[in-house]
Amino acid sequence: MNRGLPQALLASDRPGTLDATLRDRLGVVERRFRAELHSDLDCVNDLAGHVEHYHGKMLRPMLTILASQAGGGNAAERPGVAERVDLLATVFEMVHMSTLVHDDVLDEADIRRRGQTINRLHGNETAVMLGDYLISHSYHLCCALDDARIARAVAATTNTVCEGELLQLSRRGDFALTPRVYFEIVRRKTAALTAACCRLPRLVVGDGFTDAAGEALSDYGEKVGIAFQIVDDVLDLVGDEATVGKTLGRDLAKGKMTLPVIHWVGAEQGAARDAALRMLSDAAAGRETPELRERIRGSGAVQRATQNAAALVQDARERLLNGLPEGDARQRLLDLAAALLERRH
Amino acid sequence: MNRGLPQALLASDRPGTLDATLRDRLGVVERRFRAELHSDLDCVNDLAGHVEHYHGKMLRPMLTILASQAGGGNAAERPGVAERVDLLATVFEMVHMSTLVHDDVLDEADIRRRGQTINRLHGNETAVMLGDYLISHSYHLCCALDDARIARAVAATTNTVCEGELLQLSRRGDFALTPRVYFEIVRRKTAALTAACCRLPRLVVGDGFTDAAGEALSDYGEKVGIAFQIVDDVLDLVGDEATVGKTLGRDLAKGKMTLPVIHWVGAEQGAARDAALRMLSDAAAGRETPELRERIRGSGAVQRATQNAAALVQDARERLLNGLPEGDARQRLLDLAAALLERRH
Repeated sequence: MNRGLPQALLASDRPGTLDATLRDRLGVVERRFRAELHSDLDCVNDLAGHVEHYHGKMLRPMLTILASQAGGGNAAERPGVAERVDLLATVFEMVHMSTLVHDDVLDEADIRRRGQTINRLHGNETAVMLGDYLISHSYHLCCALDDARIARAVAATTNTVCEGELLQLSRRGDFALTPRVYFEIVRRKTAALTAACCRLPRLVVGDGFTDAAGEALSDYGEKVGIAFQIVDDVLDLVGDEATVGKTLGRDLAKGKMTLPVIHWVGAEQGAARDAALRMLSDAAAGRETPELRERIRGSGAVQRATQNAAALVQDARERLLNGLPEGDARQRLLDLAAALLERRH
Repeated sequence: MNRGLPQALLASDRPGTLDATLRDRLGVVERRFRAELHSDLDCVNDLAGHVEHYHGKMLRPMLTILASQAGGGNAAERPGVAERVDLLATVFEMVHMSTLVHDDVLDEADIRRRGQTINRLHGNETAVMLGDYLISHSYHLCCALDDARIARAVAATTNTVCEGELLQLSRRGDFALTPRVYFEIVRRKTAALTAACCRLPRLVVGDGFTDAAGEALSDYGEKVGIAFQIVDDVLDLVGDEATVGKTLGRDLAKGKMTLPVIHWVGAEQGAARDAALRMLSDAAAGRETPELRERIRGSGAVQRATQNAAALVQDARERLLNGLPEGDARQRLLDLAAALLERRH
């Protein structure tokens, strides 16, 4: 199993037993995920089994579990509490999986986690319905927490994620997209979920988890989510498909403006800007030339986007350093944010 | 506004004030639906506004409201109860709308309720995301009931609906599909929701709504749902697109076996059966000949499917006659089931 990002974290030689505990709990999440999706129909189980291969970084369950510990301290280890946190972590993983399956339909992607996508194997129709099946089960599982505040907060989060996706779709082909709108899209479609992973454990843990800690974690989760998306954008542009393990280069073909491309266009003026917009328009119409990527790479725009991600990670880390007491889990979250910048897949 | 089926019911001259009350309550459902979908993003509101045109028969909200009255009697009119029933009715309408939007993607349909479909107007990608937005908001709205039993039951229902759709997709192109599998598909993808509309009001009303009444209504809702789907199948095959108001004839083109077609194939033997299977295979490959529909129509298979629907409606009505006390709402549900057989759109 390739865990990418967390592998580095899990394998670190930091003292204490958090590594083994975290690994165990991610195993609980995987098993609960599988159990929730079990159906009496073989055809459904076959599809659900394929989705399990999409577990990769398990970033969202990791954030959920670590946030419960970093904000809740000993209260997060009370009998029953850790189990409920793991359940919430499973809900977030399932929500995330549903967005992956539907994103692959939107992006017409063929490869995900080094395997063929559902849409590639079984057609878009099955991918749409399987995504719906995952969404439905994520809410169903969430109801097992028997807490309407959490269920409502999870649904409010997915409302926001969908808004972000719809805003992005409405701006496809708008090659003059501003950074302001870009960040508005990303804050909703990606960062709303990572922020919720860090914020909602407070509702599970209850007493012992302060409002201030919840807010620090929520801010951290949002910033980390935006940084994560920027790194994703950069990988789509300059990454190696074999290393990243999924279909790349779809953003330009889909007329989806990402931060490095926005920086590139923003720095050009006059005829050079017109030429840039024309090349992007051509790429979105299926006529991408190698020159386009060379120009973007040569412009320093990728470095600028990477610097934006680094600044966000820095902010996220400071938010934790100032807003949470010292501890192993806080350190893990600090490391996790830093590791985001190094990820290659 | 064309309400199709319910128009006939609402306009009936049955004594009493139920007609006006029901019309008012469906108005409440429409307003709550609109309010729930409101976003701070104009692009989202434009899409949500388009979906409002899909309100048509409002069969599911009608079933929910009438079931609460038929099973709960005076208890369904207690302060606060009717409002909660209307909210549940809105949840079911929103769940149904999300399935319509995704079904249109699956069916590559261009027309719905006499207007262009979202996928036709804005592409499949937007239709997928808008469907997700509707699903997400239906769960979000459901949380306003603050009752985990209901939220879990709604999510369990949508789990089943998705299973039905996935089973159907896995059997596309299986031209020898048996009636047994057909009914299994329809029970899940269509009847699970109508059964839930009739069953879950009991959880809202509480005392005064007996288990026996809940079971009678659930059975009624399931049978009515299956009958509704059979009539839909027949309309797709022999209906007039202008009258029905949506894209028809997609079932054959999509290799989706419907009850009349199953009856036709089932009655043929030897070379005639081989020829039938070949014609269906050709139709699914985009080479449908006029002869195919003529043969199906000439075989008596459409009448046989219509008789199946009539028998289900008869069973559904008897379930209510035997399982519920007499009353206006019970009479409405009896009429509604009968009207299903007469619908032309």
